[in-house]
Amino acid sequence: MKTIQFLPDKVKIEVDEGENLLAAAAKAGVYLNAVCGGDGVCGKCKVKIASGSVESDQARLKNEDYAAGIRLACQSTVKGDLVVQIPEATGKDGKALKRKPVIARTISARSLEKLVGLWELNPPVEKRFLELDPPTMEDNVPDLSRLMRAIHQRCHDCINPTYDHPELLRDLPFTLREANWRVTVTLLKRRRAEEADRIVAVEPGDTSGQLYGLAMDIGTTTVCGMLIDLNSGVTLAEATAYNGQIAYGEDVISRIVYSQRPGGLQTLQEKLVKTINTIIETLCRTVVISPSDISYIMAAGNTVMSHLLLGLDPKFIREAPYVPTCSNFPMIQAAELGIYAHPSVRLFLYPAVASYVGGDIVAGVHACRIYKSPELTLFIDIGTNGEIVVGNQEWLVCAACSAGPAFEGGGIRHGMRANSGAIENFQIHPETLEPMIITIDRIKPSGICGSGLIAIVAELLIAGVIDRQGKFNRKISHPRLREGEDGYEYVLAWAKDALLGEDIVISEVDLDNLIRAKAAMYAGYLTLLESVGMSFADLDRVILAGNFGSYIDLERAITIGLLPDIARECFYYLGNGSLWGCRISIIDNRRSQERVMVSSLITNLELAENVSFMDRYMAALFLPHTDISLFPTVSEKLLTT
Amino acid sequence: MKTIQFLPDKVKIEVDEGENLLAAAAKAGVYLNAVCGGDGVCGKCKVKIASGSVESDQARLKNEDYAAGIRLACQSTVKGDLVVQIPEATGKDGKALKRKPVIARTISARSLEKLVGLWELNPPVEKRFLELDPPTMEDNVPDLSRLMRAIHQRCHDCINPTYDHPELLRDLPFTLREANWRVTVTLLKRRRAEEADRIVAVEPGDTSGQLYGLAMDIGTTTVCGMLIDLNSGVTLAEATAYNGQIAYGEDVISRIVYSQRPGGLQTLQEKLVKTINTIIETLCRTVVISPSDISYIMAAGNTVMSHLLLGLDPKFIREAPYVPTCSNFPMIQAAELGIYAHPSVRLFLYPAVASYVGGDIVAGVHACRIYKSPELTLFIDIGTNGEIVVGNQEWLVCAACSAGPAFEGGGIRHGMRANSGAIENFQIHPETLEPMIITIDRIKPSGICGSGLIAIVAELLIAGVIDRQGKFNRKISHPRLREGEDGYEYVLAWAKDALLGEDIVISEVDLDNLIRAKAAMYAGYLTLLESVGMSFADLDRVILAGNFGSYIDLERAITIGLLPDIARECFYYLGNGSLWGCRISIIDNRRSQERVMVSSLITNLELAENVSFMDRYMAALFLPHTDISLFPTVSEKLLTT
Repeated sequence: MKTIQFLPDKVKIEVDEGENLLAAAAKAGVYLNAVCGGDGVCGKCKVKIASGSVESDQARLKNEDYAAGIRLACQSTVKGDLVVQIPEATGKDGKALKRKPVIARTISARSLEKLVGLWELNPPVEKRFLELDPPTMEDNVPDLSRLMRAIHQRCHDCINPTYDHPELLRDLPFTLREANWRVTVTLLKRRRAEEADRIVAVEPGDTSGQLYGLAMDIGTTTVCGMLIDLNSGVTLAEATAYNGQIAYGEDVISRIVYSQRPGGLQTLQEKLVKTINTIIETLCRTVVISPSDISYIMAAGNTVMSHLLLGLDPKFIREAPYVPTCSNFPMIQAAELGIYAHPSVRLFLYPAVASYVGGDIVAGVHACRIYKSPELTLFIDIGTNGEIVVGNQEWLVCAACSAGPAFEGGGIRHGMRANSGAIENFQIHPETLEPMIITIDRIKPSGICGSGLIAIVAELLIAGVIDRQGKFNRKISHPRLREGEDGYEYVLAWAKDALLGEDIVISEVDLDNLIRAKAAMYAGYLTLLESVGMSFADLDRVILAGNFGSYIDLERAITIGLLPDIARECFYYLGNGSLWGCRISIIDNRRSQERVMVSSLITNLELAENVSFMDRYMAALFLPHTDISLFPTVSEKLLTT
Repeated sequence: MKTIQFLPDKVKIEVDEGENLLAAAAKAGVYLNAVCGGDGVCGKCKVKIASGSVESDQARLKNEDYAAGIRLACQSTVKGDLVVQIPEATGKDGKALKRKPVIARTISARSLEKLVGLWELNPPVEKRFLELDPPTMEDNVPDLSRLMRAIHQRCHDCINPTYDHPELLRDLPFTLREANWRVTVTLLKRRRAEEADRIVAVEPGDTSGQLYGLAMDIGTTTVCGMLIDLNSGVTLAEATAYNGQIAYGEDVISRIVYSQRPGGLQTLQEKLVKTINTIIETLCRTVVISPSDISYIMAAGNTVMSHLLLGLDPKFIREAPYVPTCSNFPMIQAAELGIYAHPSVRLFLYPAVASYVGGDIVAGVHACRIYKSPELTLFIDIGTNGEIVVGNQEWLVCAACSAGPAFEGGGIRHGMRANSGAIENFQIHPETLEPMIITIDRIKPSGICGSGLIAIVAELLIAGVIDRQGKFNRKISHPRLREGEDGYEYVLAWAKDALLGEDIVISEVDLDNLIRAKAAMYAGYLTLLESVGMSFADLDRVILAGNFGSYIDLERAITIGLLPDIARECFYYLGNGSLWGCRISIIDNRRSQERVMVSSLITNLELAENVSFMDRYMAALFLPHTDISLFPTVSEKLLTT
C-alpha cells in the first residue's frame, strides 16, 4: 500500500501501487475537475507531484509544465508514497471536499479467512493410479471385477463403488489392454454415508497428476468460471463472459417470458451452454489443458438460471404462488447438456431455497458460514433482484426484493452495465457544481453503471442539487441543470466530452427508479429483521455479496439509504459469494456436503404480498428514508452542507 | 389324463386329452409304420379303435374301413380312455417294441413347487396413487418437494426416494397441474438396504390398477417373453421369436466373430432389440395394452447375449483366458437401447458367472433354489453350449462344455431347429428296420431336430443298426442302408415322402458329431463332480433345463450316454429355467434380491484346458460310453436285443 497526501487539505489515503491517481483522488473524496471520464482529452485534472513517484504520460502537457512536476491525474499511475498539490485552477477553489475519506473495507487475507474459513484439500473427485494383474486362465474374472478388486485392495476408503454405464463399460476392456493394465481411475466420492463412491472414468496410464475442477457462478447477466487444480487447491485461471441469454431479456422475468415461446426454453438453454463453453475454452487455453481434462464442475445460479440450464420449464416460478420444479437440483452429466466436457464429468448445482432465492445465495451463505457463526449477520446480494438473508447459527431467514434492474443500469435513461466507458465514480464541486467523472477503463463516458449511479445520487443529495424526495432544486440556475425529455435533469457530460456524442444526463425519472430500487432493498432488510423480532441494532455483520456489491461505495450507499446507517466496521465485502461457495465446495468435499443442509436451514419469506413490507417500502421512498433519524450520519452530513 | 392300451401287447400309457395318437404310440414305445412324419399321406399308420373315443379325419380312408373303426393314428386325437388294436400290417409283425414305456417325468404342480418354491406377490416396482395439496402462497414448496412430501406421508416404507432426471423433472410441473394434483407414482424399490427407492414415473390420475412386468429369456436362438400382471402375479401372455441375430451366425462364437466386423456390434444389438420389440408388440396386442404400460423388464441371457444387448464388445470372451467385460450387468433404461418402453422402464439382466456360464444359467439355478437345498443337484442346460452346475446349499460349481450345435441341428447334414417338419420322434422296427417318424406339426419331414436325433441314434443302437462306436453294421443289407456322400448312412425318409423332395438321411459323420457333443456333456458332469470328490452315485437330483431339455426322451438320452444312467426318479424337467428365474424375480422382490448372491456362490471351472476333462471326453466317445458298466440299464438293453 502507498500513502498519498493531497495538498492543500492534507487529505490522506492509502492505495495499491499502480492505482490511477484520478481514481485515488475520487476515493479520497478530493475533487478534481474531470469531465472526460479520465480519457486524458479534457486536460483539466492537472496536479503537481510535490514528492514521490508516478508513472505518467507526457502527451497533452507542455514541456515546461511537465518539467515543473505537473501531471494529468487521469494519466498517472501511483508508484510510491506521494504528496500531491492540487492547483487552484484544478480544484477551482483549492479546497478538497469536506467529506472525510473512508477507506473501503475490502476483505484482507485475514478477514477473508474469518468470513469463509479454512478449507481442506479434499476434492469430491479423486484419481487413483492402479496397476492390475493381467488375467490368466486361473484368474479370468471379468474386467470390471478385476478393476473393482484393485480398487478394493488399493483404496481402502472406497467400498463397493458403483460405476458409469455405458460410457465406462463399453471402453473398459480396450482401455485396460491398451494401457497394459496400468490405468488411472477417477472416483466421484459419495455425498452421503449411505451412498457408494462412483467410478466415472478409467484412463490409460498414470494421469493422477492432472485433476482439474471448474467452479462456476451462473448469473443472469454474467457467468464466471474459475479453473482449479484439485491436486493443490490452487486457482489457475478465471474467466468471465456475458450470459448469452441477455439478448432474450435483461432479467429473469423476461427470460421466463421468452422461455414460453415455441423453442424458447431450448434456445435459452443452448445460449447458456454456449456461454459456459466459451468460459471453458478460455480457461483451458489459458492453462493449456483440454476441456476433457476437467473432472468436475460445481456451479451455482439463481433458481431460474438453474432451471434453464437443466432444461426445466421455469413457467410456474413467475406465477403466484411461485413454485419452482425443484430446489435440490440433480447431479447431471455435463456433456448431456452440451457442455464441452468428458462424458464422465458431473455438474453439481447449488440447491435453491425458493423461486427467487437461488443457489447463488445459498453458495454465498455457505461460503461465509453464517449458519455456523453466533454473529447475527445480514447477507445482501444486490443485482437485478436483491436477495437478503438474515440469521446466525440458530436460524436463517431470507427474502427476495424485486428491486428492479436500476443497479445494473436498467430503467435509467443512460444506464449501462459496468463496461468500458461507464461512469463508475462521480464527485461534484460543492460550489461550481461541476462534475468529476471517472469511467471504467478511463475512456470518454458512454453511460452510467450501478456504482456510478449511487455516487451521482449521493453527491447530488449532499450538494443540495436534489432534495430528499429525489427532485432537483429548481432554485439553482446552472447550465448543467435543465428541463429535459423526462423532466428536470443534470448533465453529467456534454456531448463533446461523451463517447457517443450526445449529452449524458440523469433525470428525475432515473432518480425515482433508483429510489424505488433502494427502498425495496431497505424494506426487505427491515421486514426480515422484524419478522424475527430484531432490528439493525442487533446486527453484528453486514456482508455484501455479488459482483456489484464489491464496487459499492459504502458511505454513498448509506447516504442514499441503500444500506443501513450502522457502524462501518460491521460491513464486509465478500465479492462473488456464489463463486466463493463453488470454489470451496470443489476443493473441500466435507464442506461441499453441507450444501444441501444449508439450503434447508434457510426459511423463505415471500415479500410480494407482505403488507408490512409494502408499508416499509413506502416509508423508504425518500433519500435516505422518510425517517431521517434512522440515518444519523447522513443526517449530519446533510446538515453540514 | 387318459389311458391308452395298445393291443396286442397290452402296452399302456397315460396321455393328455387331445394328444395325437401316433405321438402317443411313439411315447409308449409302440411301433407303427409311419414314414411321412404324420402328414397323413402315406396312410400306413392304420389302427383299429377297439373301445373309446377319438376325433379323426376320414379322408384317405375307405368308408368300410372307417365304419369298422379303422383310423389313421397320425390323424386321430385322443378324446377319452382308449383300447387300440394294431393290425398286423401296421405293426408288421404285430408286436410292440420290447422297450418298456417310460412315462416322462414332466413337472406336475406339486413337484414344480418343490423345485422352484413359492413366491410372494411383491414386485420390484409398485404404483401409488397420491392426492397432493395444491400449492398456496403459504405453502409454495417446489413441485418435487410437494411430491416427496406426499410420498413420505403416504408411503411409510419409502424413505427419501431418489428420482429420474431429466425425464421426470421436465414433465413434473405440467403433469401435476394437468392432473389437478392427483397422480400415480411408479416406485422402483431399492435393491439393497443402503440404497433408496426411486421414483421412475409420475402419471396423471389413478393408474395403479395397471402394473405390468415383462420376463424375458434371451437365447442365442430363441427369445421368449412373458407378460405378467404385477398386481396379481398372473401370467397374461407368452410369446417367442427367433433371435434376429441368427442370420449372423448360429452360435455365440460366430456372433462374436460377426461383432468384430465394422458396424457388426451395432447390427447385432439392433437385431436383438428388434426381436425384443416384436415380442413386446405381440404380448401387448394379445393383452390389449400399450408397450408403455409395461413398468419393468427382467431378463436373462448367456454372457454373450447380455453383452450384445448392452452394446458391450464381446471380443475378449472368445480369446483365452475368456474374460467378459462384466458379469454383474448394470440396470439400464430399456428405451436407451431402443426397446419399445416408457423412458422410466428399467431392464435388469441376470448376472453371469463367467464367459460361458451366463445369466440364463444363474436364473435357472435361482429358480430351482439349488443354493438353498441340502440335495446334491446336477443342473444341466443343453443347447448349442451345454452348461452344467453341480452343488447344493453348501457349494456350487459350474462349467460350460463346448458341446457344439448338434443338439440344435448344427453339424448334422439334415439337422434343423425344432420347427414344423422336423423329425422329433423316431422308432425303428426291430426286424424290418423300417422307420416310424413323427414330425413337429405332423407334416412331411424336412429334417431332424435335436430330440429326433437322440431318438434316431438310440433306436439305431438298440436295433443293432449301428455299433457302440457309431458305425453302421456293414453286414446288414437293407435298401435304407447305403454308402452316401459322407460314408455310410441310413435313409430316414425317401424323397417322395419328404417335404423338400430329397432323401433325408443320417450319416456316420452326423453320428460322430452327435457322439462328440454328448461326450462333452458327460465328461463335463464327471469332471465337475470329481472336482469336488463326488460321483453320480451321490446325486439326489438331476434338473434338465433349457427349451431343448423339455423335449429330451430320458431313456434314449441315457441310452446314447448324454445323461447318466441313474435312478429315473432323480430326473426333473424344469423347462426354460431362465424364464422361470425372470418370472419369479419380477413377481417377488425378495427372491429377486438374491440374484447377485446366487451368481457369486457359483465357482466356475474352465474345461477348455482341463486335462482330466479331455481324458473323460475321450472315454465318452462311445455309445453310451467306453466303460459300459457305467450304464447298466443300457447294457441290459443292448444284451436283450
